[in-house]
Amino acid sequence: MAQSKAKTKKQPRPKAETPKGFRDYFGAEVTERQKMLSQIAHVYHLYGFDALETSAVETVEALGKFLPDVDRPNEGVFAWQEDETADWLALRYDMTAPLARVAAQYRNDLPSPYRRYAMGPVWRNEKPGPGRFRQFYQCDADTVGAPSVAADAEICAMLSDTLEAVGISRGDYVVRVNNRKVLNGVMEVAGLAGDENEAARGIVLRAIDKLDRLGPDGVRDLLGEGRKDASGDFTKGAGMEADKAELVMGFMTAKRDTGAETCARLAELVAGSDVGAEGVAELETIATLLAAQGYGPDRIEIDPSVVRGLGYYTGPVFEAELTFEILDEKGRPRQFGSVAGGGRYDDLVKRFTGQAVPATGVSIGVDRLLAALRAKGQTSGAEAGPVIVTVMDRDRMADYQAMVGELRTAGIRAEVYLGNPKNFGNQLKYADKRDSPVAVIQGGDEAERGVVQIKDLVLGKKLAETATLEEWKDRPSQIEVPRADLVAEIRKMLAGE
Amino acid sequence: MAQSKAKTKKQPRPKAETPKGFRDYFGAEVTERQKMLSQIAHVYHLYGFDALETSAVETVEALGKFLPDVDRPNEGVFAWQEDETADWLALRYDMTAPLARVAAQYRNDLPSPYRRYAMGPVWRNEKPGPGRFRQFYQCDADTVGAPSVAADAEICAMLSDTLEAVGISRGDYVVRVNNRKVLNGVMEVAGLAGDENEAARGIVLRAIDKLDRLGPDGVRDLLGEGRKDASGDFTKGAGMEADKAELVMGFMTAKRDTGAETCARLAELVAGSDVGAEGVAELETIATLLAAQGYGPDRIEIDPSVVRGLGYYTGPVFEAELTFEILDEKGRPRQFGSVAGGGRYDDLVKRFTGQAVPATGVSIGVDRLLAALRAKGQTSGAEAGPVIVTVMDRDRMADYQAMVGELRTAGIRAEVYLGNPKNFGNQLKYADKRDSPVAVIQGGDEAERGVVQIKDLVLGKKLAETATLEEWKDRPSQIEVPRADLVAEIRKMLAGE
Repeated sequence: MAQSKAKTKKQPRPKAETPKGFRDYFGAEVTERQKMLSQIAHVYHLYGFDALETSAVETVEALGKFLPDVDRPNEGVFAWQEDETADWLALRYDMTAPLARVAAQYRNDLPSPYRRYAMGPVWRNEKPGPGRFRQFYQCDADTVGAPSVAADAEICAMLSDTLEAVGISRGDYVVRVNNRKVLNGVMEVAGLAGDENEAARGIVLRAIDKLDRLGPDGVRDLLGEGRKDASGDFTKGAGMEADKAELVMGFMTAKRDTGAETCARLAELVAGSDVGAEGVAELETIATLLAAQGYGPDRIEIDPSVVRGLGYYTGPVFEAELTFEILDEKGRPRQFGSVAGGGRYDDLVKRFTGQAVPATGVSIGVDRLLAALRAKGQTSGAEAGPVIVTVMDRDRMADYQAMVGELRTAGIRAEVYLGNPKNFGNQLKYADKRDSPVAVIQGGDEAERGVVQIKDLVLGKKLAETATLEEWKDRPSQIEVPRADLVAEIRKMLAGE
Repeated sequence: MAQSKAKTKKQPRPKAETPKGFRDYFGAEVTERQKMLSQIAHVYHLYGFDALETSAVETVEALGKFLPDVDRPNEGVFAWQEDETADWLALRYDMTAPLARVAAQYRNDLPSPYRRYAMGPVWRNEKPGPGRFRQFYQCDADTVGAPSVAADAEICAMLSDTLEAVGISRGDYVVRVNNRKVLNGVMEVAGLAGDENEAARGIVLRAIDKLDRLGPDGVRDLLGEGRKDASGDFTKGAGMEADKAELVMGFMTAKRDTGAETCARLAELVAGSDVGAEGVAELETIATLLAAQGYGPDRIEIDPSVVRGLGYYTGPVFEAELTFEILDEKGRPRQFGSVAGGGRYDDLVKRFTGQAVPATGVSIGVDRLLAALRAKGQTSGAEAGPVIVTVMDRDRMADYQAMVGELRTAGIRAEVYLGNPKNFGNQLKYADKRDSPVAVIQGGDEAERGVVQIKDLVLGKKLAETATLEEWKDRPSQIEVPRADLVAEIRKMLAGE
């Protein structure tokens, strides 16, 4: 700030821009997200989860993901090194890596199991795109130290409660549950067990993940010899024989009308595989626990087609999908899709301590969920502006301040116009830009007579657009009221009376 | 995550540690701050301020402060450069620099005046110390584009309302207001106008800032030839003659019983200086506006000893101080001190656009304010734990889940114990660690008889510490109730009935 004048002159003006891939959030964009976060936190808290807020900055060593890649420790994350002897630091890219660090660091002090929730921004150093930003919010809940699938069932129930708490109606969402062990069992039965088949198993995982896009035949090709796409590019397949490939195809389409029937079908598919049987038994336990609490398939269902991040998870996986249709940018109806997901992972804490600690959790994509509520018209994305008290007479600023003081005491959002008051038109333009519902006007004449003019800006807009002269006269958008009735009259006007 | 086993073996385990100067916040530390932020946001919103959330990351160019120091762009901030051709990026170090960028970037779209609030973490790359962290919260409100001191008065009134809204009682705080122009006037009268006296003026500013620590005589030395401290180090003074120095000393002690008297005294001190007279007139206007709204000197007062960040500000400056005493780490009583401050600054947007834009604002030190409430015992720093439903019989997990389901539906925080249930003592230890108020116990026998045991852990602790045998019998801390009365009985127990 204390630069000499000579210096300031020489320097070109800085550009007023956010860095690429970052954005600013204004007004309701901030307050509606805040409201949603606090609704989510309320449910998480009710379930016994405790808040945890780690700092945005972690050592790259603790984040871990990037350790093998010593030449580019900032791959995917924003990372820096103070000087060549200092630790590499980085912005967190999710909430799970910091949780693993916390679970290890405070392992002697934390309760076990440790249920925690965390909400806040995470940062990804990735190529930004339309709607894809390098900073976005996550809202996670995890249980560390609970080996029982009762913990997974609890997370699913909580996710269902949470979606309803923020305003997604029952029937407009479904939480789908699957189990990694069942898929492992299917692959074992299909002859893909053993280290030598690791590559083939990877191809199967990626193929399943593409069912939506490629359809069953495309996936069959990838399970077999491979697939040539429209451009002629060939993707090598897993090399499975046709009958074995059908086992995997059968896994993806194993969903039946009830959870029990689905589990029975899965049990057939993994017959002979211990890990597969274990996976089916876990799904059955989850289904039983949820049914006992009244979470039927209208809210939570077993669905073997859920394959999210399967490389990462070790047991149950789940995903919340919104089932209503919205119009995409081209006006075509499409399902809104996934807004949350998670599952069981058991190796994150082990990195630090050498001891495996079972963990399961869910992450809600806050910005997507908010977009869904906006698409449903349940939040406006806009905020009611304040009542604007205009300034007719600069010397009576104290009077105007007294008016807004009274309004605020009554809980009504209000402000005095603080720009240059000379041009009254500018004051009304300002009120318009602020989406003000009401403007208050008091010139010297009105002050002398002990009255104020109050102008219904919402009605005024409506009348200006549609009204006949009779309607204008019948219900004028501006009325004169005694100064003493200011608050009461504005309250009436805001209520649309 | 998909590292081969060979690799994992070779790598040493990462350290589970926060980077130096950063910390984690648990449970009530998070929720109490969140509650305070939402109370503050409520007041700001009522005053017509709109939320703004900028990203944590800005270009170093936009942050600006560090531009002249091209060799060390990360001085004081956390900054990095993707590669040698990329922009330097940095974590924001306050909320004002991003506001200036936003005000310039969106100048054609934002209402003018633009009232905005912002809350969130900021990052400083400074030497951490006890209680000083490299990430901490700020909560700012600023008005951009309002030249009138009515905007400053509004900020002061809002600050007063905000402190009361978060739980600081009237009388336990005071908002002190001063004006940079008055001090400039005093220095002009004392012969320190002109470019050639810039260094001397800087010495005067720093000297005034040290009044608390050095006392009047120490400041006098610094205004004159200089001062030798206890260690023998000599600090060069401003070189003022004794009678001129007394003008500055008089400024610092110009506070009188009423704002009007203080202003009158200041007017005497700056007699002959235009800028000084302007500053006094501004203080008088602020005092008049605030008095008209009922903000008397019990809440907001004119106090010339307020000299915060004077190099930065161009007009009114203000500071909120908590006036009650707390005990310091050595048990000695001391005043809590400043928790918020701000003032008028007019050159931040000009960096970008070349046009001066008047701005005024306040920043609340959220963590300090929270510490104050804890010192006053108004927030506990601890959180009520959930009701714990213990697991006596692993096969009846669904029954236990049903119990917590009912409790949550009734709004009672509750969870099932999800660790290994074999050792019942561990379950009660867990409940203790969670600060649970109540534990629920139902073995097979109780289930058959349709009852549950509920154990008052709060009362249990109290009885264990102090009770006689009679009291134990008189009010046992564990009772058996019908399963159907579970929720009602626990509600009674939580209410201490």
